[in-house]
Amino acid sequence: MNAPIQKKGMSVPKTMKAWVLDGPERLRLTEKPVPEPGPAEVLVRVDAVAICGTDVEILTKGLPAMIGGGLPFNKNFTPGHEYMGTVARLGAGVDEWRVGDRVAVEVHAGCGRCERCRMGMYTSCLNYGLNYGESSKGHRANGFTTDGGFAEYAVNQVNTLIHVPEGMSDEEATLIVTAGTATYGLDVLGGLIAGESLVVTGPGPIGLMSVAVAKALGAQPVILTGTRDARLSLGKRLGADYVVNIRKEDPVEAVRRITGGKGVHYVMECSGADNALNEALDMVNRGGRICLAAFPGERVPVDLAKLVRNNIYVYGIRGEGKSAVHRAAALMAQKRFEAKLMHTHTFGLEDLPTAFKYFRERIEDAIKVVVKVHGPKNP
Amino acid sequence: MNAPIQKKGMSVPKTMKAWVLDGPERLRLTEKPVPEPGPAEVLVRVDAVAICGTDVEILTKGLPAMIGGGLPFNKNFTPGHEYMGTVARLGAGVDEWRVGDRVAVEVHAGCGRCERCRMGMYTSCLNYGLNYGESSKGHRANGFTTDGGFAEYAVNQVNTLIHVPEGMSDEEATLIVTAGTATYGLDVLGGLIAGESLVVTGPGPIGLMSVAVAKALGAQPVILTGTRDARLSLGKRLGADYVVNIRKEDPVEAVRRITGGKGVHYVMECSGADNALNEALDMVNRGGRICLAAFPGERVPVDLAKLVRNNIYVYGIRGEGKSAVHRAAALMAQKRFEAKLMHTHTFGLEDLPTAFKYFRERIEDAIKVVVKVHGPKNP
Amino acid sequence: MNAPIQKKGMSVPKTMKAWVLDGPERLRLTEKPVPEPGPAEVLVRVDAVAICGTDVEILTKGLPAMIGGGLPFNKNFTPGHEYMGTVARLGAGVDEWRVGDRVAVEVHAGCGRCERCRMGMYTSCLNYGLNYGESSKGHRANGFTTDGGFAEYAVNQVNTLIHVPEGMSDEEATLIVTAGTATYGLDVLGGLIAGESLVVTGPGPIGLMSVAVAKALGAQPVILTGTRDARLSLGKRLGADYVVNIRKEDPVEAVRRITGGKGVHYVMECSGADNALNEALDMVNRGGRICLAAFPGERVPVDLAKLVRNNIYVYGIRGEGKSAVHRAAALMAQKRFEAKLMHTHTFGLEDLPTAFKYFRERIEDAIKVVVKVHGPKNP
Amino acid sequence: MNAPIQKKGMSVPKTMKAWVLDGPERLRLTEKPVPEPGPAEVLVRVDAVAICGTDVEILTKGLPAMIGGGLPFNKNFTPGHEYMGTVARLGAGVDEWRVGDRVAVEVHAGCGRCERCRMGMYTSCLNYGLNYGESSKGHRANGFTTDGGFAEYAVNQVNTLIHVPEGMSDEEATLIVTAGTATYGLDVLGGLIAGESLVVTGPGPIGLMSVAVAKALGAQPVILTGTRDARLSLGKRLGADYVVNIRKEDPVEAVRRITGGKGVHYVMECSGADNALNEALDMVNRGGRICLAAFPGERVPVDLAKLVRNNIYVYGIRGEGKSAVHRAAALMAQKRFEAKLMHTHTFGLEDLPTAFKYFRERIEDAIKVVVKVHGPKNP
Repeated sequence: MNAPIQKKGMSVPKTMKAWVLDGPERLRLTEKPVPEPGPAEVLVRVDAVAICGTDVEILTKGLPAMIGGGLPFNKNFTPGHEYMGTVARLGAGVDEWRVGDRVAVEVHAGCGRCERCRMGMYTSCLNYGLNYGESSKGHRANGFTTDGGFAEYAVNQVNTLIHVPEGMSDEEATLIVTAGTATYGLDVLGGLIAGESLVVTGPGPIGLMSVAVAKALGAQPVILTGTRDARLSLGKRLGADYVVNIRKEDPVEAVRRITGGKGVHYVMECSGADNALNEALDMVNRGGRICLAAFPGERVPVDLAKLVRNNIYVYGIRGEGKSAVHRAAALMAQKRFEAKLMHTHTFGLEDLPTAFKYFRERIEDAIKVVVKVHGPKNP
Repeated sequence: MNAPIQKKGMSVPKTMKAWVLDGPERLRLTEKPVPEPGPAEVLVRVDAVAICGTDVEILTKGLPAMIGGGLPFNKNFTPGHEYMGTVARLGAGVDEWRVGDRVAVEVHAGCGRCERCRMGMYTSCLNYGLNYGESSKGHRANGFTTDGGFAEYAVNQVNTLIHVPEGMSDEEATLIVTAGTATYGLDVLGGLIAGESLVVTGPGPIGLMSVAVAKALGAQPVILTGTRDARLSLGKRLGADYVVNIRKEDPVEAVRRITGGKGVHYVMECSGADNALNEALDMVNRGGRICLAAFPGERVPVDLAKLVRNNIYVYGIRGEGKSAVHRAAALMAQKRFEAKLMHTHTFGLEDLPTAFKYFRERIEDAIKVVVKVHGPKNP
Repeated sequence: MNAPIQKKGMSVPKTMKAWVLDGPERLRLTEKPVPEPGPAEVLVRVDAVAICGTDVEILTKGLPAMIGGGLPFNKNFTPGHEYMGTVARLGAGVDEWRVGDRVAVEVHAGCGRCERCRMGMYTSCLNYGLNYGESSKGHRANGFTTDGGFAEYAVNQVNTLIHVPEGMSDEEATLIVTAGTATYGLDVLGGLIAGESLVVTGPGPIGLMSVAVAKALGAQPVILTGTRDARLSLGKRLGADYVVNIRKEDPVEAVRRITGGKGVHYVMECSGADNALNEALDMVNRGGRICLAAFPGERVPVDLAKLVRNNIYVYGIRGEGKSAVHRAAALMAQKRFEAKLMHTHTFGLEDLPTAFKYFRERIEDAIKVVVKVHGPKNP
Repeated sequence: MNAPIQKKGMSVPKTMKAWVLDGPERLRLTEKPVPEPGPAEVLVRVDAVAICGTDVEILTKGLPAMIGGGLPFNKNFTPGHEYMGTVARLGAGVDEWRVGDRVAVEVHAGCGRCERCRMGMYTSCLNYGLNYGESSKGHRANGFTTDGGFAEYAVNQVNTLIHVPEGMSDEEATLIVTAGTATYGLDVLGGLIAGESLVVTGPGPIGLMSVAVAKALGAQPVILTGTRDARLSLGKRLGADYVVNIRKEDPVEAVRRITGGKGVHYVMECSGADNALNEALDMVNRGGRICLAAFPGERVPVDLAKLVRNNIYVYGIRGEGKSAVHRAAALMAQKRFEAKLMHTHTFGLEDLPTAFKYFRERIEDAIKVVVKVHGPKNP
């Protein structure tokens, strides 16, 4: 943790170091003006930022469909969305936060004026990407459509901040948003999961967090499927009651075996594998529910007959809605699971390319790779 | 309508005429004992019964996955589930109904003791098909797993009966359960649809009923897509604000055109076409919802990335849950739409094979083909 | 209806006539600057505005608890919230509306940044009343905490506007928000009310609208209770299946009689009578739900034992949440009920005190008294 | 724990010892035939049964409103509903349970055929009390309308049984149903309570369990109010973040102090105090929710204006619906809280009057007083 900032008068420079995306695979470290927070916004000094699989997608493909006005290349755009830091300056009318507050972030600040935002679905904002010029609607998705956290400072809307619990390291705090996505998925599946059965497919960060949050909320049994024993073993440490290595056992048969043939109430799909939804349809019982937090790159064959005949609901989730990040942060503050087991590596801001390399190639079994921007590193 | 039965002392014969299914495409008219209603059951004199697409499936394939204990062939099984009639006899402890009551029926009587039934999801009963012998759990799905309505009499659990509104013909009353399925789909999509936009894909009976019920509940606009102008024209008479013949215009483009590029809130998929779900994913806006009331026979490629990225929920529905049949019957009693426009042909019980032929081959544009079992035919 | 405004270049004066509230019962007509719409806001030329019971409360008591910073007296405050008009000018970044659009309004524009707004409960905004100076959070409740519609122009946040359906008179359009409150109440009660039974207690504007909307959505039966035959008779014309004059018959007994002793699913309490909640508790069946849209001025004795023992839920509603005004407007656009039956009198802006007198003293059976600010009066 | 019963062939006597209620305060130990389980029922050998406040009400007043056919006196009626035991015999068609299973119980087995049961609200069964003779609908509320657990054996419907987790003592298992009521209340309040704030008023068994379950689910902060320091201290051990002795501090002011003036999201009212609802209305923030699990004996003055103006929902709960007992049992199996702290005394079946005396007079700070019917006592 860093030394606390003086509540009044935190010294903020005029310019800052920031990575920008010039083209596919072309990250460049540059100097940018420190941005100014507007009304309902604050300036956050980025203390740490983790790398997410979506960052890799943006780095390579730019996610054109998601960016208002096309690809983010050669636009001085700074990616990075799993960051945390310290409130450094307040925009006009902000009294929800104080300079010096340690904060983690959510990605999505909805416009607040479209139909979806008005009904509370701010991650499905219909004005996604509109934050610039005449057509600005105030939407922000930091690291996607507005500048993110691979930099020394970033601007956040007040709705996208969460207090970092006391005693939690900067590195662990970068994982709050991941836990929030997992929590959102479990919320969407029904929320009342204590004593109910869940399969989590895919032991990536969101999958592992889904195991941890589901166990914290009392789900029983929680079954994790995957291909790598090290990840599955970590899943066990995070609370999974059963793990299934799908290279060694058919996952549908394993679920049937474990549940005495009954199947489970819920599947949280976090693998993006081509056949994952079909397998999920075979894992849940009649009336069961499936949340898709990952997806294959191409269209894949799906057994819709099974979906309809068994009254199954399939929920695609985008980001971390329903203020689920707050619930996730509360569980982490209460030390319900050891999120920090997922943090494997730390680098400095200037080493971002190396950090990406570790993450992408899973060097030394890397899971969550954190870039420490300000303050001392935490083991 | 039939002359009212004397409240006490309706005369019930010992045996009755009933069609049974000897094998694929092998219906046979026979004589069976009139069944006895047990506790919480009544005996219904079948007055009219309509043919449903699922009846054709049962006739040809037997729906083995749905029948407890395998195919229904050569088991003296009587199909038929869209029937209505008159309460002829009460089982022990029944005071919810009186002899002489005109009733329409729901298909599913859940066991009442499994987890899904206990949470109100009786069409997703986990004891589906278990109504026989030692393992009887009391589940009934008349015309699927227990004897149905292609016969002079049938037994129904008290939960599966709905009063036929005064002044409604027997023929129209057979359509109540179809309207119930449409209503269930709209309930699942959210229920509060007045002023919200809906696409219904596929102008079969459920699709047409979805149009009618959605308009009755105030949805606006309601867009119906299909391939046959006659059906689309009927959809207009049932209330559709727009119809799109997909042989003449791309349905996704049409929806975009009609909605000014915004897409719709909901899609009710009733076509079972291979690409219907993908098109629906392109029709709804971000955060939208899709109900699947039909499905392709084979696995079909689905764009799951779009589903996840746009936070779309897909609901498979089975039967007519949430007591939706009661809501549908109330709307029909209030004459909110002209359901009887969908009734095109009437035959006698002995003519069931001809009735099936008309339905399957859409002879004379047949939509709902009704078999009149007792009482005078209604034009 | 007024002649359409030229889309570009509507001429807006610098100052306008507006009523302001100097003290209890002290309304004064004055000249004010026409306000400027900010970002996400538009300027509305007020064409017509109706008087609501809450306006009388504000006129007499000032509703101190609701106003940020105390009583609204001697602050140049303009009340009036049931207005409609024409978009006259657009704030920065507004492309949802065009100059010349005919619009009705909702009262509440939540701040969009508090916990309740973020979950879609904008009428329960925690920053209620904070729209001024340094502590501005952007909340608006026009006619309550920000200037309202007893004036020639008013500013509205884009979220609080609804298109007036073609062919609807200005006078009728002022009733949309009232229908919205009724719809919100019915939404909160469950939403799926077709074929379900409802008692509406109190035939004031919200009660009458509740009858009309409930019937439009298929509720059956709808029972209206009240003390004045003229109002009850109007309730019948708006769709009530039964009316009960509580001066002539005990309402609880009447409900039992009409429902064959079973009671109803829902009560919508719109009378504010001291014993209304207790009577509602006796009207609903076990597991029933009650919405309170009105309330007594003092604490009243309530039979909480009955509430708990019968698993009854009681919902207080504030304003018109869940975008219910959009649903209400859609039903009115589809002419599902004759809202204009409730409009009884029209006055000019300068005659506001007389309009209030008619409303308060129910002169000539006044129900909805409308003040026509711009354009010709509609009979 | 008892020695496991032989799976097949548990020896069941013809008659048993059972307490019956001859009149107010007149419990009598007698010999009764051991009852026979019917279809969908099992015979449970009662191993332990706890005393609940409602048992005292039945003992003294008979709860006439709740009993079909009037007071339970002089009808050979056996009260007692918080029991657990061992499955001793199976009714026809039961394969969900095996002889020898250790089970805890829920009170309510809905009829399964009324409107409320069909929608999953089985504790609000409209056929409450109808389990006898010609009008039998199959409803059971053991210890209320059908014979309960102050006896050696009792019959239970299969839906009302929960597996007792391995390693849990009989005494602790009697507390599962109490935890279930608390869980039902939290479910009704919204379910997604991690990180949300809750006040529990009244540290009786349900209040204490509400604290424990709410903390297990991540609520933060949980504030418990009461009058006795010993109980509040126990509340702390069960997880309460703050306790408030209302004899020493005004509870509304205390809640404002603890929450920094913001109030809480939820209140779970378990005291039945006359002013508890009004205080709760002052404790929750706008849009908050209150669950009433207790109630005053008489009508009490309630500030309905506050309820309506602040869009507050009040939920009366009856029993333990939504299968909440299963969630509660799962949390107890996972040892999320020390339920057994609430168990203070144990007596033998023949000492039931003494057990009641301890419970009613709170002798030696009695909280949960357990009667051990079979097997060794557990400290």
